[in-house]
Amino acid sequence: MKNKIAILGSGAMGTACASILEENGHDVIIYGIDQYELNDLKNGFNSKHFNNKLITNFKTTNVLNKAIENADYILIAIPTRFIPEVFNNLVDQIKNPTVIINVAKGFWPNSENFIHEGMKKIAKKNKNIKEIVSLIGPSFAIDIINKNITIVNAVSEKIFYAKKVKKIFSNSWFGVSINNDVIGAEIGSIFKNILAIASGMAEGLGYSTNTQTAILTFGLKEMKKYVHALKGNIETVYDLCGVGDLMLTGLSNKSRNYQFGKNFFNNSNNKNTTVEGLYALKYVYFQNKNKLKINLPLINAVYKIVYNKVNPQKIINNLIKKI
Amino acid sequence: MKNKIAILGSGAMGTACASILEENGHDVIIYGIDQYELNDLKNGFNSKHFNNKLITNFKTTNVLNKAIENADYILIAIPTRFIPEVFNNLVDQIKNPTVIINVAKGFWPNSENFIHEGMKKIAKKNKNIKEIVSLIGPSFAIDIINKNITIVNAVSEKIFYAKKVKKIFSNSWFGVSINNDVIGAEIGSIFKNILAIASGMAEGLGYSTNTQTAILTFGLKEMKKYVHALKGNIETVYDLCGVGDLMLTGLSNKSRNYQFGKNFFNNSNNKNTTVEGLYALKYVYFQNKNKLKINLPLINAVYKIVYNKVNPQKIINNLIKKI
Repeated sequence: MKNKIAILGSGAMGTACASILEENGHDVIIYGIDQYELNDLKNGFNSKHFNNKLITNFKTTNVLNKAIENADYILIAIPTRFIPEVFNNLVDQIKNPTVIINVAKGFWPNSENFIHEGMKKIAKKNKNIKEIVSLIGPSFAIDIINKNITIVNAVSEKIFYAKKVKKIFSNSWFGVSINNDVIGAEIGSIFKNILAIASGMAEGLGYSTNTQTAILTFGLKEMKKYVHALKGNIETVYDLCGVGDLMLTGLSNKSRNYQFGKNFFNNSNNKNTTVEGLYALKYVYFQNKNKLKINLPLINAVYKIVYNKVNPQKIINNLIKKI
Repeated sequence: MKNKIAILGSGAMGTACASILEENGHDVIIYGIDQYELNDLKNGFNSKHFNNKLITNFKTTNVLNKAIENADYILIAIPTRFIPEVFNNLVDQIKNPTVIINVAKGFWPNSENFIHEGMKKIAKKNKNIKEIVSLIGPSFAIDIINKNITIVNAVSEKIFYAKKVKKIFSNSWFGVSINNDVIGAEIGSIFKNILAIASGMAEGLGYSTNTQTAILTFGLKEMKKYVHALKGNIETVYDLCGVGDLMLTGLSNKSRNYQFGKNFFNNSNNKNTTVEGLYALKYVYFQNKNKLKINLPLINAVYKIVYNKVNPQKIINNLIKKI
């Protein structure tokens, strides 16, 4: 069945998702605010992210109302910091039954809510929003654009809607696996960013794969403890949005968080780039210190290196002694 | 306390282990059969594996009896196919109380026993052998030679001996974590080799990280089912010798199994190279088919591609449909 699907956001992941849905024969429209990018997409390209790769000619608009009119699904793929404004605006304007698909990860800006939670709270105001489904898992946008086999999780407490999202996305190279543990999935997403910073730091300090895989293994154990403490499902830690995304992000220069860690000690990071893992780190550290009080030595170590400027070698020596 | 430690095997991992123990101040001697390699080691090098890197001047011998005389520990780091002969010979010759440390992984040649199991059976003949402790985890030998931080598991049913091994190996950059689940650890080791073949195949077919991390995530779930079926401890799947080693091996050209998978479709593999994962694959496939009968779609798929020459695209299409 052909659905109308509005993509909010003309960045890498918005374009990648739009390309899958176009290939699957849906009626796709991309909403954005940058007219240059929208024209580029109309011509079949996203030069900013995918150079001169011809993708497909996209329908685009810079009018939110036009994008979401009669949309069966609205996919949110905008930078986290813009989400509150756009999402509030969106919820006010939805006039027909729709399902929201969220690919943004991390925390709702200036709050202690995960994005999915934050969206749910605001979405309650509008009965036309049937559900919010997160689409997360090990997926670089460029690999999707190149039609590499990619498998992600559709996460929603209501399996019925996760299955609907699975249906519109699935094809011969893009697979969707259902998961109903929203909490575990969100924790996986934020932990993997923190751990990617730690793994990048290891490279920055001159260490290699042995060191990075040790960090990621201990990090996974801490992710598990955190999921347990917040009453998520531990199995999610071992799903695509947990260990899968960790393997993708934690060992790759394609990740912004990894790069931040790698450049941390030579101060070559661009101060204006948003690094999701940094906010996540601060939040997890304080939530744990003040409320959960579980033993997260690796998280604490990364926090102390980033925010208290403690000498990493001192921290590393302490960690190794405790093994 | 200074211990006498005999290293059997002058290859990459034998040399790497010897270098740690030398640094820790033990009395180390490397036993080998290749006089050129032994001379090289005596001069401080292992040119075959580590080029012109100066390691340290090792004591060496080509006389087994001399190597193991009064040894507190004997570390086995020889290729799996030579283990039966060397190990039988060794067990006959041990005349003082000693602990055997095993870094070889996989199956005892031409048998259905894991190496650790196979060793245990033969070791029963000699009461001087106090225990066999496996030392496994995410560790490329070259990274150890470069003193990269490395953390592995010491695995033994008898924690007392695992702790002794931890003590002799631990230093400021090499950490050892104890695990008493021999079965889970061995399964981790053999599965990671099979999954590295699968991940290498993905690269060989032109796929990228999205595809590989999906394979490794689903592979980890199958590893877990297999550990459960053989009554290992599921937690081991998430330890250094499980997911840790999987992350190291499954995404790296440094792994022989990965390379085999990568070159499989262009038939550029050297027929004389031992690929542990190939034997593991056959064994796991048949043990499951005939006895365990659990659902291992990925293992079955790799088996069919390698041994039945089924078209990989057909297999992939089927797998994706079932997600």
